[in-house]
Amino acid sequence: MTYDPDNIFARILRGEIPSTRIYEDDDTLAFMDIMPRADGHCLVIPKTPCRNILDASPEQLAAVINTVQKMARAVMKAFDAGGVTIQQFNEAAGGQEVFHLHFHVLPRHEGVKLRPPGQMGDMEAIARHAERIRAALD
Amino acid sequence: MTYDPDNIFARILRGEIPSTRIYEDDDTLAFMDIMPRADGHCLVIPKTPCRNILDASPEQLAAVINTVQKMARAVMKAFDAGGVTIQQFNEAAGGQEVFHLHFHVLPRHEGVKLRPPGQMGDMEAIARHAERIRAALD
Repeated sequence: MTYDPDNIFARILRGEIPSTRIYEDDDTLAFMDIMPRADGHCLVIPKTPCRNILDASPEQLAAVINTVQKMARAVMKAFDAGGVTIQQFNEAAGGQEVFHLHFHVLPRHEGVKLRPPGQMGDMEAIARHAERIRAALD
Repeated sequence: MTYDPDNIFARILRGEIPSTRIYEDDDTLAFMDIMPRADGHCLVIPKTPCRNILDASPEQLAAVINTVQKMARAVMKAFDAGGVTIQQFNEAAGGQEVFHLHFHVLPRHEGVKLRPPGQMGDMEAIARHAERIRAALD
């Protein structure tokens, strides 16, 4: 299992591919999922390379889970959510599609199911949702 | 949002309810899910109280995610898995049923779907799976 430096998230980190960034610190980046399974669905990644949870360092894990918490709290506030679901997929059999460690943060409302995976979102709606999350972070 | 000290996992930690423990250190406990959605489905919890990711301390999060990694690596080996899915639910709307922070660790095999939630497992099979994970940890 190796790390491909040309995976999509590595290219997002290098600014080679656009993304809707909502938060970053020295070690992590949070940005919107372009196939949102719920309004406000965002992703948290480490800025340094690792494929997934199997090869991550303790430092990468600690930094990422702290930012996951920050985003979980922010989406609760931004969307007046009733809860948050966290998902993290490792290797293709585990559901992973982009091979740079990432955590999904999904705001949830009682009785509202997640949308099916793999459906492109409306970029204008995603931009509005990102702005709500950024405001909730302040 | 408060912490109920009589939630099932708090009672498991106090030894008031039996569980199939597979790993523990000073800060965390890993044990088998009794409603396994895949063979080897286990849970990781902090030993100290917190309701979910929204109120967890940085120390609790760092300790728990490290044990999640340890269990992810162990189930890969124990079940010759192709991947691992991590799930973590917060508040009822987010899918949480027991209100003590926990991470689900699910060994996965290509093309094998997770079983539906809420189905009691066979306790003898769960005991055998636990033994395989313990052996993989050594």
